[in-house]
Amino acid sequence: MSRIHLNAFDMACVGHQSAGLWRHPDDQGHRYRELDYWTELARTLEDGGFDALFLADILGVYDVYGGSRDAAVTDAAQFPVNDPSLAISAMAAVTRTLGFGVTLSLTYEQPYALARRLSTLDHLTGGRVAWNIVTSYLDSAARNLGLGTQIPHDQRYEIAEEYLEVCYKLWEGSWESDAVVRDRERGVFVDPAKVHDIDHSGRYFTVPGPFLCEPSAQRTPVLFQAGASPRGVRFAAAHAEAVFVSGPTPQVVRGPVRALRAAAAEFGRDPRSIKVFTMVTPIVAETHERAVAKLAEYRKLVSTSGAFALFGGWTGVDLAGLDPDEPLRYTDTDANRSALASFTTADPDRTWTPRLLAEEIGLGGRGPLLVGDPGEVADELERWIAEADVDGFNIAYVTTPGTFADFGRLVVPELRRRGRVPDHPELGTLRERLGGAGSHLAADHPGATYRHIRATSPTSA
Amino acid sequence: MSRIHLNAFDMACVGHQSAGLWRHPDDQGHRYRELDYWTELARTLEDGGFDALFLADILGVYDVYGGSRDAAVTDAAQFPVNDPSLAISAMAAVTRTLGFGVTLSLTYEQPYALARRLSTLDHLTGGRVAWNIVTSYLDSAARNLGLGTQIPHDQRYEIAEEYLEVCYKLWEGSWESDAVVRDRERGVFVDPAKVHDIDHSGRYFTVPGPFLCEPSAQRTPVLFQAGASPRGVRFAAAHAEAVFVSGPTPQVVRGPVRALRAAAAEFGRDPRSIKVFTMVTPIVAETHERAVAKLAEYRKLVSTSGAFALFGGWTGVDLAGLDPDEPLRYTDTDANRSALASFTTADPDRTWTPRLLAEEIGLGGRGPLLVGDPGEVADELERWIAEADVDGFNIAYVTTPGTFADFGRLVVPELRRRGRVPDHPELGTLRERLGGAGSHLAADHPGATYRHIRATSPTSA
Repeated sequence: MSRIHLNAFDMACVGHQSAGLWRHPDDQGHRYRELDYWTELARTLEDGGFDALFLADILGVYDVYGGSRDAAVTDAAQFPVNDPSLAISAMAAVTRTLGFGVTLSLTYEQPYALARRLSTLDHLTGGRVAWNIVTSYLDSAARNLGLGTQIPHDQRYEIAEEYLEVCYKLWEGSWESDAVVRDRERGVFVDPAKVHDIDHSGRYFTVPGPFLCEPSAQRTPVLFQAGASPRGVRFAAAHAEAVFVSGPTPQVVRGPVRALRAAAAEFGRDPRSIKVFTMVTPIVAETHERAVAKLAEYRKLVSTSGAFALFGGWTGVDLAGLDPDEPLRYTDTDANRSALASFTTADPDRTWTPRLLAEEIGLGGRGPLLVGDPGEVADELERWIAEADVDGFNIAYVTTPGTFADFGRLVVPELRRRGRVPDHPELGTLRERLGGAGSHLAADHPGATYRHIRATSPTSA
Repeated sequence: MSRIHLNAFDMACVGHQSAGLWRHPDDQGHRYRELDYWTELARTLEDGGFDALFLADILGVYDVYGGSRDAAVTDAAQFPVNDPSLAISAMAAVTRTLGFGVTLSLTYEQPYALARRLSTLDHLTGGRVAWNIVTSYLDSAARNLGLGTQIPHDQRYEIAEEYLEVCYKLWEGSWESDAVVRDRERGVFVDPAKVHDIDHSGRYFTVPGPFLCEPSAQRTPVLFQAGASPRGVRFAAAHAEAVFVSGPTPQVVRGPVRALRAAAAEFGRDPRSIKVFTMVTPIVAETHERAVAKLAEYRKLVSTSGAFALFGGWTGVDLAGLDPDEPLRYTDTDANRSALASFTTADPDRTWTPRLLAEEIGLGGRGPLLVGDPGEVADELERWIAEADVDGFNIAYVTTPGTFADFGRLVVPELRRRGRVPDHPELGTLRERLGGAGSHLAADHPGATYRHIRATSPTSA
């Protein structure tokens, strides 16, 4: 029985992927500004058997729907949005094993500074940090961050490749493992012969110097990625240790997962070493009937315009002006067809209208709703593992922390009974918890080739 | 009796301004990577009556001395250095009133992202955050962060002026105070008519959009600045709410303080509204004799080369190659003369050698050592307040947290007896604690003019 990995999927905002659900009396999303919200959530997740809390981020606002941000703002749909990295140390202080994934865009920050931020988090958490690598996709972000317009998609990945090369040199190559000696007698804290300039000079970045941080427990944080385009999949296959996918059915997800693992093998990597997380939104209760009743209660609170705002931001497709109850036709453009298909293939015979689409994605985004008692939800998770060949789940919430608390209280014990989740979380780093052989990058990972970039010292390996 | 304000001055590194003192058995600086170091320090400071913890930062390494970074690396003198902002939430979670000052350079990050980072910290801490505005001064940072060489000094301040204008528009102008309504009945979390584009289009920055964050307790974090050049003083007089100065005697500091307050008045600001902090390094014990013995013990541990590394980084003057025991002559260049004078005017009749200079600055940097029993140290602090017209002190450490713990345990009770420090810290925001009339920028501060940049809504003030 393979292990099932579990991330909680959240964001430093009121409503992540559940438009309008802030109106639910139990929802605590509005407390995203409070430290207590985050420390309580972290404890809930650790007690509930989650591997990690994953924090999404955007640096813009969804303004495609109706050509305006009004719908997103009204429903606080991922706007306002705070920085995702700053509550992590408080959460780490009240937990022992929970991992923290943080989304940081490489489009707007130099690698020398970003690498230091991640290493600092890895130090403070004792090796419990993952980086979700994104190249930002929002025009509204680019306009406000000095770019004017987006960098073309494929060039973003070319930049990302070199960006990671710089990071690997900093994380893996600059400091030898025994550089910090703290020898009081000799008066040497760091042996300067074991701290190396990385001498990077490339097309997009010039970084001659040494890394500012001594090595953290994981050196390179666990690398997550979610690229779905062909270029994005190639990037993930080369670099990612965990990948986010999403789709309404295992059949939709299975193909991309197979392609990802095959591409990883082509890069000389063990295809099973990449942990694939697919998104699901569980609505669980003690009985099937109660779960169905919860779903009905939630559905009433979905904001249609808020869901359209999310959909527009994710796909670029503006549903404004359509009759909400007219069947959707995929005739206008290829982009529309592909955007809609990624949400609506759950039941190919079903007729989708904008309103039905909003109801579907307004509760947790583009993953499926898993509604039922603990056994039913566990069955569905096991079916996804088997049929889609994924390793775990990004648990999206309908209400926060309610969805996470319910899942930890009801589903995780069932998964434990089935041998899918360990009774006690593994101690150690996040990389070890996710199945890595050790705290550092695997030997077949491209980052490993940057170790000891200048192993000129006789004591280095 | 005026209030005396107290900052603890630290950095996310092994040794901040006490080169070689990491060899002292009590020094805990090497624990800068551990969350517990920071949460214990925060509790010590709050219990000890400090107003705030101030975290310096550099994004480079001191490599002027001997044309190499070896001395700085060997003594871990501000290298390695972690990101200063990421432990703050953990410290905020274990304290109620302590403020947190964080140094963030505006040279390497877009204002749209930096403003969000600071607002997020202000949210999470409930309004306890200050920003130490720096325009980075190290060539070694510029080389690694995409600039190649430094931006010329005066242009850095021109950029900084526009940078702050963008921040003020985001913090003060974009969101009206009643934009967040959280009205469940109407389904409105944020009233989009009260979130405004800032429409900034300037010489260095183009930021059309709205701020990503809702207003935090202070909106604009408390603004600290430490510019000592004529251009830097003008910038501080215009924008700073607190200013760091340093010098060996009140007489050296007094002139710049007077010039700063006069310049603030010219900008139409209340000159007393700027709180001036000067740096001191207290070595205090129950008795004078014990304090003197501590000083002697500390002196033995100063690393001369580590001190020269700091001196080189701060001043650009390389003391390598000089006989450590030959008297210093200020004859070579104006820059040297001015650099040395800022450290060595404590006793104009004294003959300074490189070794004596290292002993002086190796214990806490360019402020004076205040050595004595609690009454003597309190007397000295009061003398500084009176003679230099400062409002408080940046307490530099010899050992951490030892210097801070000693000060809180021995000197603060004496200051309380003298009515200089309140018996119980004021609740509220950091701005209020530092004497502000409220949580927000004073009406005579230039940032206040950006409030309601588009007060077109009938309900806005």
